[in-house]
Amino acid sequence: MNTVPASLLSAIVTILAILLFFFMGGRVGRLRGKHSILAPATSGHPEFDRAFRIHYNTLEQMVVFLPLLWLATSFYHGIGWLPALFGVVFLIGRILYMQTYMADPQGRGPGVLIGLLANLGLLVLAIIGIVQDWGAVTAT
Amino acid sequence: MNTVPASLLSAIVTILAILLFFFMGGRVGRLRGKHSILAPATSGHPEFDRAFRIHYNTLEQMVVFLPLLWLATSFYHGIGWLPALFGVVFLIGRILYMQTYMADPQGRGPGVLIGLLANLGLLVLAIIGIVQDWGAVTAT
Amino acid sequence: MNTVPASLLSAIVTILAILLFFFMGGRVGRLRGKHSILAPATSGHPEFDRAFRIHYNTLEQMVVFLPLLWLATSFYHGIGWLPALFGVVFLIGRILYMQTYMADPQGRGPGVLIGLLANLGLLVLAIIGIVQDWGAVTAT
Repeated sequence: MNTVPASLLSAIVTILAILLFFFMGGRVGRLRGKHSILAPATSGHPEFDRAFRIHYNTLEQMVVFLPLLWLATSFYHGIGWLPALFGVVFLIGRILYMQTYMADPQGRGPGVLIGLLANLGLLVLAIIGIVQDWGAVTAT
Repeated sequence: MNTVPASLLSAIVTILAILLFFFMGGRVGRLRGKHSILAPATSGHPEFDRAFRIHYNTLEQMVVFLPLLWLATSFYHGIGWLPALFGVVFLIGRILYMQTYMADPQGRGPGVLIGLLANLGLLVLAIIGIVQDWGAVTAT
Repeated sequence: MNTVPASLLSAIVTILAILLFFFMGGRVGRLRGKHSILAPATSGHPEFDRAFRIHYNTLEQMVVFLPLLWLATSFYHGIGWLPALFGVVFLIGRILYMQTYMADPQGRGPGVLIGLLANLGLLVLAIIGIVQDWGAVTAT
């Protein structure tokens, strides 16, 4: 795996995250039909409400996760596959979040936590990379 | 057009998408005033509710469209202007979505479909590019 | 500061924007617990409702701000630290928005305006950069 550039691995993770987000949005659409919830309403049946919140909570996560993934990929020059690995952990956390939330919103904790830890991991990698670049630039 | 780099065309499409999103958000603000809907309320009049949902549905699309546009632009090395062309199709779909949704939310189908097809086109380009890069890297 | 690449400064601003967004989301979570608002509900107490709208309005801003910041950073080749400076102005605007909105939603105007001006500044830089690149490409 060391021969594969970090950007290629992070591109694959980005595609997977987008497919997961597509899937969540598609479920909202199907449940809108199933429970006859007409747009522009965004609630009306507990099953729909859960699917809608899963989709939107993941929307909140996407604007944090994708920038952190690519900052880590661009600035961190250590172990090349580490940003993508944290990305896979994020995806696992989100899938767990989705499955547990649909069953019972109060069981969503572990999925939230795994996604948060993955984002914190990417944040640390990005900061390490930025600090190293800053040191290299100001030393010259 | 072949002499213009793909990244420059995609940058223009990105600017246009952001301007469209700005416009949608601006309409939400104007209708908030017109119908005296005080923040933090996000509903209260059918016209406002439609404008609000158009804005937020496009927000969902932005976190999918912009990453796909730039993955296709960065990784697909075929016809340079193809990512930007799909981007223009996306914008046409969103404008149609906005216009039909304001008139009647149940008429939003065609606009949604065109935007979805544009995103699928970008997804295919991105995957082609990633697979080709992967092949080139692992072959060496 | 001229020796520090623009991308490094914009990376730092991106990290700060993500940390601010994290903070806003964390407050929503804490107020959810404080006022016993069970998921998937997204309203139920004025304090929670304000924190929720601050978070989501900033979500709308993130999909505009981050692309504009990086388009300006990538395409504008004038004063290197100018995109990051507009980024800092955006952050100041959002912090002011958050503080005033929590106190009284009707006082949010100045924070909104400062953030908007920062985004407009980045938009102008991005367009200047794109036009210059376009001119350079088509002149050859």
